[in-house]
Amino acid sequence: MNTSQEKMPARKRRSLETRKRLLEAGRAQFIESGFQKTTISQIIKRANTGYGTAYVHFNGKDDLLIHLMEEVMVQFYEIAELPFTPKSREEANIMIEKQAGLFLEMAHEERQMMQVIEEAIRLSDEVNRKWKEIRERFIKGIEQDIRYSQAHGLARTDVNPYLIAQGWFFANEMYLWEIVKNEDGYPVQEIARNLTAMYTGGLYT
Amino acid sequence: MNTSQEKMPARKRRSLETRKRLLEAGRAQFIESGFQKTTISQIIKRANTGYGTAYVHFNGKDDLLIHLMEEVMVQFYEIAELPFTPKSREEANIMIEKQAGLFLEMAHEERQMMQVIEEAIRLSDEVNRKWKEIRERFIKGIEQDIRYSQAHGLARTDVNPYLIAQGWFFANEMYLWEIVKNEDGYPVQEIARNLTAMYTGGLYT
Repeated sequence: MNTSQEKMPARKRRSLETRKRLLEAGRAQFIESGFQKTTISQIIKRANTGYGTAYVHFNGKDDLLIHLMEEVMVQFYEIAELPFTPKSREEANIMIEKQAGLFLEMAHEERQMMQVIEEAIRLSDEVNRKWKEIRERFIKGIEQDIRYSQAHGLARTDVNPYLIAQGWFFANEMYLWEIVKNEDGYPVQEIARNLTAMYTGGLYT
Repeated sequence: MNTSQEKMPARKRRSLETRKRLLEAGRAQFIESGFQKTTISQIIKRANTGYGTAYVHFNGKDDLLIHLMEEVMVQFYEIAELPFTPKSREEANIMIEKQAGLFLEMAHEERQMMQVIEEAIRLSDEVNRKWKEIRERFIKGIEQDIRYSQAHGLARTDVNPYLIAQGWFFANEMYLWEIVKNEDGYPVQEIARNLTAMYTGGLYT
């Protein structure tokens, strides 16, 4: 009885270690070869495990990439879900610019993995569906912030919060991919400042 | 001499007809089978011409698609290059909303071909490069409009016209792809109204 209890956690621990090794091997292999050229065999070999064991954890290359994508996205979600309770237009501007700046900076820091993700979104229907879910989560978060600002008399109420949230996210997302693809664009903070100025205050005076 | 002069235009005319037939066959085949599944052989067969003749006109499937893309884009350019000389913020808002509405409406009207183009941008480096050129042309056009508005005291001057133009185009472009992919989204004019309100007047009051 005692032996069995000790055995179970050990087996579970080994299983978690194998899973972690597969994720690490996947990350390294994807960054090295890109999404399309990476094979699940390369990842399994690199993780020093067997096919049967690997398929207990992941249902193939696309599935493994989706788990890596979720790991990266956790950091993005933390930024997206920073508390947003501005007291004034100025405060809202500061908070949004900070959020946009962190979002784009994170993309730059994670650019190797984001390049793989970009390729995978283009080529895999499964990964593309996952990206749409992630995007929808961001947009819902922004929509809530807009509703908060509208309810507190800070934002205009003659617009549809969902459509505005989507437009704002789209502009940020496209800049994210630009940053991921081109090392030598405008500084991230300059992009965040300009985008936020347009979003909160508008271009016309 | 006379015979030769008459022969030349006839040959030229036949050549142009063949080219037109290849483009029409390509359009029909791409819409029917999508970009990836279409082969150049299918297009050549459909156009009722030969390999040698076809390759006089187009350097393969990607090249033919790029020419079809340019045909579609001519209509978009006409919208993008509508005269823009607003006298007031209100007038600018009306003009920009109209432009954005026409842009998104055109995407909806051309959605079959735009779906093919979307697929081709994801899968072909050659088509992707062409799309970047098209995008750059749009962004430059918007940048000019912003500089006009700034020079005439209508728009704020504490922002970078290129970065704002890019952000504005990105938001429109992403909505364009949404419209192309989903038949049952928000009405195009509602999207244009909301996006333009954000762009010209800002969300915060």
